[in-house]
Amino acid sequence: MNVKLGEIRIDTINQKELVDITGEVSKGVTKSEINNGICVVYSMHSTSAIIINENEAGLREDILKKASDDFCSGSSWQHDRIDDNAAAHLAAAFTGPSVVIPVKNGSLTLGMWQSVFFLELDGPRSGRRVVIEVIGE
Amino acid sequence: MNVKLGEIRIDTINQKELVDITGEVSKGVTKSEINNGICVVYSMHSTSAIIINENEAGLREDILKKASDDFCSGSSWQHDRIDDNAAAHLAAAFTGPSVVIPVKNGSLTLGMWQSVFFLELDGPRSGRRVVIEVIGE
Amino acid sequence: MNVKLGEIRIDTINQKELVDITGEVSKGVTKSEINNGICVVYSMHSTSAIIINENEAGLREDILKKASDDFCSGSSWQHDRIDDNAAAHLAAAFTGPSVVIPVKNGSLTLGMWQSVFFLELDGPRSGRRVVIEVIGE
Repeated sequence: MNVKLGEIRIDTINQKELVDITGEVSKGVTKSEINNGICVVYSMHSTSAIIINENEAGLREDILKKASDDFCSGSSWQHDRIDDNAAAHLAAAFTGPSVVIPVKNGSLTLGMWQSVFFLELDGPRSGRRVVIEVIGE
Repeated sequence: MNVKLGEIRIDTINQKELVDITGEVSKGVTKSEINNGICVVYSMHSTSAIIINENEAGLREDILKKASDDFCSGSSWQHDRIDDNAAAHLAAAFTGPSVVIPVKNGSLTLGMWQSVFFLELDGPRSGRRVVIEVIGE
Repeated sequence: MNVKLGEIRIDTINQKELVDITGEVSKGVTKSEINNGICVVYSMHSTSAIIINENEAGLREDILKKASDDFCSGSSWQHDRIDDNAAAHLAAAFTGPSVVIPVKNGSLTLGMWQSVFFLELDGPRSGRRVVIEVIGE
């Protein structure tokens, strides 16, 4: 049984942005040489999230629009007095900073239409840190 | 330390549907012969989710209604031009494809009012695949 | 490879409340003597959730307001005929009962602005049970 911990850094260029990190996560699994176990993808920020869905250009726009529609700035949030990014915090809090994906025969058990995304909610930012951890045998 | 990977297939008959899979998940834990560890339940689809809540008939209807209310079709989503199921993708993306439940003394640490559900968001479908993984000692 | 299972009890005093449990979770990691692995924080209730975000007084209020705004009581939910707390169940179902955080060099990989919260959605309640589990080496 082994634990392999890695980290990637992500630079974002828009206020809201979806970054497909499936390749980096898969690479982490391959490098770990773990055949069966789990992969944890964890964002170390409170204004971003990790989600899994299909990587289709229109849907990527839909996801960002939905995050904007459901978590509005300008709703007189108290945190806006301090940082003016309450909406981003709220979207992050209710979406969640991590996903856990089984690893089987050396690969993520992602379905055909599943990609792993870093969801930027308060960009642009440089050096966003995402932990990629693989545990198993 | 052991890793046990299994999979179940689920057929759904409605557009939106909650399928209680607590029995199958518990069976996976029993079969694994793992006493202490975790159980990961992971749906391999981008138009479904895994949730945990109480299995009460009225509440099951409420959960499906809430998913419909909050993730509307007909909102001119871009993905609808391709597949006409953007709302299902959005609900899946923001709800999440997996849950992780501790395993203690050979059982899931589910509370008295907690059941594990497969949430179909784009049915009816046959052969929905859900990975049930148990890791521990 | 080791598995350490612990539990904390939480008393809440308001209908909705955020309880910062970062200290208890960190203590669980320290006590486990596990250096690298994961920590699972799991709430055994269907009217509460676990979230991660910044512990700032205004933002804490914003999070509770958002939970109230998005999951309204009085929407003629069917479960309200039985228990009058459907809104709390719905918020719990779509937010989720658990988080998984990597453990690295004996510490949680929490970012600078990340705290772990128990989110009470149907309080006040006494003796809310939260499992804190650490797995690793």
